[in-house]
Amino acid sequence: MQTIAIDMDEVITDTAAKLKAWYFRDHGRKFSEEEIRGIDLKKAIPAEHLEVFQGYLNSPGFFRDLEAMPGAVEVLNQINQCYELYLVSAATEFPPSLKDKFDWVMERLPFISWRQVCLCGSKRIIQTDIMIDDRPRNFTYFNGRKILYSAHHNVGEERYERVDNWQQIAEKLL
Amino acid sequence: MQTIAIDMDEVITDTAAKLKAWYFRDHGRKFSEEEIRGIDLKKAIPAEHLEVFQGYLNSPGFFRDLEAMPGAVEVLNQINQCYELYLVSAATEFPPSLKDKFDWVMERLPFISWRQVCLCGSKRIIQTDIMIDDRPRNFTYFNGRKILYSAHHNVGEERYERVDNWQQIAEKLL
Repeated sequence: MQTIAIDMDEVITDTAAKLKAWYFRDHGRKFSEEEIRGIDLKKAIPAEHLEVFQGYLNSPGFFRDLEAMPGAVEVLNQINQCYELYLVSAATEFPPSLKDKFDWVMERLPFISWRQVCLCGSKRIIQTDIMIDDRPRNFTYFNGRKILYSAHHNVGEERYERVDNWQQIAEKLL
Repeated sequence: MQTIAIDMDEVITDTAAKLKAWYFRDHGRKFSEEEIRGIDLKKAIPAEHLEVFQGYLNSPGFFRDLEAMPGAVEVLNQINQCYELYLVSAATEFPPSLKDKFDWVMERLPFISWRQVCLCGSKRIIQTDIMIDDRPRNFTYFNGRKILYSAHHNVGEERYERVDNWQQIAEKLL
């Protein structure tokens, strides 16, 4: 059975949607698709708001109730039946996210065991047959099949096999 | 620079000492070295106490104030200067341990960054040049140099290079 590592933020969960919603709530400003095309959300934030923005990611509960990407739960359930699936999420940068991310998985993906969750700082030491991630930097040392999940910040990245949604993941892997 | 993954429980921290101390506090019983030679501590516990014992591991705070093994902090500090060091700990089985283990590292090993901490379920997907661990099962899929850290439960295991303490780790790696 092949091993597969799947990222959480911006792949399984729509983390950017909540960041944008909180920023709109606090500063009354929305970002157009064009403004954030090819860049990190925090690069679009004025310098004087950066601390508040980082604070969102460090708020206990921020990662606890994120929306799942459309189709993610159903396709993960199927992938879990024919791959050795691991959810690998960079989490230690924002310590309160450790508990929130773990609790999210246990509640929203009840077919996933604690054995399948990996909360790390860097993905440098992760090796599986396949990795799905929205961050090209996580592929730097990765030797397996790299599948880039499209996100506003990775538009224009052309080095990797790409999927735009979970339907396409299902078509490729199931 | 070589990458190295080092386990926490029973390698960096003396987790068994606290388990034994709590069990003595609650049930007035100590374990001789002979009783637990070659077996897991929980296999020495009477069946009717197993739930209490597992409860220790799930107590918030249990992993927060563990004693470091003698020499561990000093040698880790040196290893950190000549290896790409990652602390890889199985933690998701006991969810409160996630925060406790992370906070322990940040407090007791201030030279370690959040980028170097990995809290996982299984170590199946970890690949580095070197791994130090007390559990032979964590070497099953590991392709690098395997160094077994001696613990009561792995006495008799002869398949791996072995160290008994941090002095020996320093001699081998520094």
